[in-house]
Amino acid sequence: MPSNTNSDYKYQISEESPVAKFAKLMLSNSGEVEKWFRARWEITPPPFYASTDIRNSGYRITTVDTNLFPAGFNNLHESSRALAVEAVTTAISNLCPQAMRVIIIPENHTRNQYYLANLWYLHKILQTSGVDVQIASISEEIHEKAIINIEGKYIEEAGTNDYQLKVLQLQRKEDYVYCIDEGKKFVPCMILLNNDLSKAYPEILKNISQPINPSPQLGWHSRLKSSHFNFYQNISREFAKYFDFPENILQSKFVTVDNIDFHNSENLSPLISSANKLFLELSETYARENIPYKPYIVMKADSGTYGMAVMAINSIEQLQSLNRKNRNKLAVGKEGVPTRRVILQEGIHSLEYVDGQSSEQVIYIVGKCAVGGFYRIHPEKNNDGILNSPGMVFKEIPFEGCCNFPKASQPFNTRMNQNYVAGVVARLAVLAAAGEIDDIK
Amino acid sequence: MPSNTNSDYKYQISEESPVAKFAKLMLSNSGEVEKWFRARWEITPPPFYASTDIRNSGYRITTVDTNLFPAGFNNLHESSRALAVEAVTTAISNLCPQAMRVIIIPENHTRNQYYLANLWYLHKILQTSGVDVQIASISEEIHEKAIINIEGKYIEEAGTNDYQLKVLQLQRKEDYVYCIDEGKKFVPCMILLNNDLSKAYPEILKNISQPINPSPQLGWHSRLKSSHFNFYQNISREFAKYFDFPENILQSKFVTVDNIDFHNSENLSPLISSANKLFLELSETYARENIPYKPYIVMKADSGTYGMAVMAINSIEQLQSLNRKNRNKLAVGKEGVPTRRVILQEGIHSLEYVDGQSSEQVIYIVGKCAVGGFYRIHPEKNNDGILNSPGMVFKEIPFEGCCNFPKASQPFNTRMNQNYVAGVVARLAVLAAAGEIDDIK
Repeated sequence: MPSNTNSDYKYQISEESPVAKFAKLMLSNSGEVEKWFRARWEITPPPFYASTDIRNSGYRITTVDTNLFPAGFNNLHESSRALAVEAVTTAISNLCPQAMRVIIIPENHTRNQYYLANLWYLHKILQTSGVDVQIASISEEIHEKAIINIEGKYIEEAGTNDYQLKVLQLQRKEDYVYCIDEGKKFVPCMILLNNDLSKAYPEILKNISQPINPSPQLGWHSRLKSSHFNFYQNISREFAKYFDFPENILQSKFVTVDNIDFHNSENLSPLISSANKLFLELSETYARENIPYKPYIVMKADSGTYGMAVMAINSIEQLQSLNRKNRNKLAVGKEGVPTRRVILQEGIHSLEYVDGQSSEQVIYIVGKCAVGGFYRIHPEKNNDGILNSPGMVFKEIPFEGCCNFPKASQPFNTRMNQNYVAGVVARLAVLAAAGEIDDIK
Repeated sequence: MPSNTNSDYKYQISEESPVAKFAKLMLSNSGEVEKWFRARWEITPPPFYASTDIRNSGYRITTVDTNLFPAGFNNLHESSRALAVEAVTTAISNLCPQAMRVIIIPENHTRNQYYLANLWYLHKILQTSGVDVQIASISEEIHEKAIINIEGKYIEEAGTNDYQLKVLQLQRKEDYVYCIDEGKKFVPCMILLNNDLSKAYPEILKNISQPINPSPQLGWHSRLKSSHFNFYQNISREFAKYFDFPENILQSKFVTVDNIDFHNSENLSPLISSANKLFLELSETYARENIPYKPYIVMKADSGTYGMAVMAINSIEQLQSLNRKNRNKLAVGKEGVPTRRVILQEGIHSLEYVDGQSSEQVIYIVGKCAVGGFYRIHPEKNNDGILNSPGMVFKEIPFEGCCNFPKASQPFNTRMNQNYVAGVVARLAVLAAAGEIDDIK
């Protein structure tokens, strides 16, 4: 919920750190950076939208997760939402110039007030950009129509009013989908997915003639984090070569381990051996690069989201002594999908603090434009913790300003300049996602 | 110069006024409004950019001047400049998708520090959107290259630094123009005019193969304000019909008078008789509509800009007793062009006050997007004065927020909502300009 932007913000990245050098390079060459992106978007056009989590240790600044079906539009600062309106107008005219009617397909379980506020803003941003919008669900829980209350406190501009969100039932006829609102048939020109399809590619969306964006093939039923990070490593390597700086500033090392059964602890030895190898490799790298941190590893399901089946590993012993409770937690992801394959990834010690607590930047991209974002903080986590954790309270604090207006004459660590640099990394992540999309064609 | 946004702002438009009703209609139908614009832009695409002066009396909200070669990008709020970057990216890809190199043609006399700061920001906005930009002049004063200093105080992000602006000489070869920077030839894909061409269509730009935007045919050497307002009356009438409200809310009455010689006072009787007729008409209209103001008329050269050859007329006697000094002032416009034809236009009593002084909103539009603007205030003028007056000090105060994110649940007179409504009127003015462009094709 967008509220307190007067938070105390500390960016503890020293002037001499590799990330500071990278930031200065980006700021003094922003025209070239933008040209590079313009040319790259021509090769792989961006998805309609995405959000990505950026962590910054002063030695690494990189994405740790990229969401193609982003929630959280309620957490954006007002100026970012205004920019989003313009970016949506452009994205629609690029993807589907004739789209005058759009259906948003939401997550199936839409009682979470934060998520409903996200839908409210997403609906509003689309409507404000001049298209007719309906929200229609593929969930069987919705019969014809559901009117869902959103408490006013979840919507910044509400005052004391409560809001009602109308969710219709998505219906199929021949090769198209539609919904019915007050007896009138609404046939969309485009479908905007805001549902990450953890379980499967829904039958109702198969072989329809209307464009669906982002593609349902990139739902978590088949998307792999490791595939995203492979594309990301390639694109960030290309970017680093072009601008002549070490690529590892933009990357975190990772490996994948397959055929895992967390219920059976004797079966975990390939996982432990992979983690051990990665720990050794990271220790060597950190020594060579004079990185003063003790490496840690983040283990997550290779397909999955919502911060489920995610764990920070600080030592190999921690992995060896996983108890049954933790193993059970790891064994299933969102909507009960079993975890069979994990990714082990170098953890990034975040040095950005909000209100004294470790934070990560979540950046929203609409089309080609990084519109802004928020800081995610977690009251119970240190700088090597997983901030996107389930079940715990975390705060999301919108940051002021957008990500597209660098000021080269000012220090690298002003808010606008930090946002620009984070926006560059975020757009590299979206270029990686664009590579994934291109790959399934 | 963008500085104090903590100004005291008063919007003295009552809840029951016609403009308040119009504003509420726009806010509660913003989705429909945006759809209407989307469809209209398809018929007449917008110019690259424009700015327009909006005055609001509670009974009328209308444009009083539309500039196709806007200066003042230095006066925009930071969030508007961020939005401008995105809007420029879109405008370029719509107008000239392959444009990777742009030349800005500035005004010929570029020693005014405010204008130079405008150029600096315009250059930066284009560069930030990922194109190569050079500034090249058609003035014969520039031989090869001029390096012009801008004092740091004119550029918000300067700190204490001064800036240097490089202005090259525009050169022509065969059917294209170019400039030379440090021995390297720079051939633009597009020319961006920031020179209103008061005197003539420059020879150097005639019959070149590169696109020029906005068209030099719309320079003040041949553009007529009355033609703009004719297009504006038509488009605002169409808009008023569609949304079912009285069209005169969006319009000010005007007439034109031709064959004027201000040097010869005996020759002014057709002008006086036209003004008299307009005064009578306005008195009747104001009585019928219960408008509690004494009508006034604004007289301006039908072609011309910079607030030159402009005068507010409060009574017919004032016009009858014009002294030689005032007649001489009116007789010539910018760059000494003689005034032969004037437009007499209903004056709008501005009820928007900044720091206790009457103000008007100047809105900037890039492509289809109203990005924001500033308030123009004049320390020596009342609410029926010409705020864009030459020779006098006026202040330009950027307004926060953009013009594209209305909040229907909040009162019509919040800043964001006022900006949205002013942005609607501004876009109608740009649609009128698009009509002018279509007309010369």
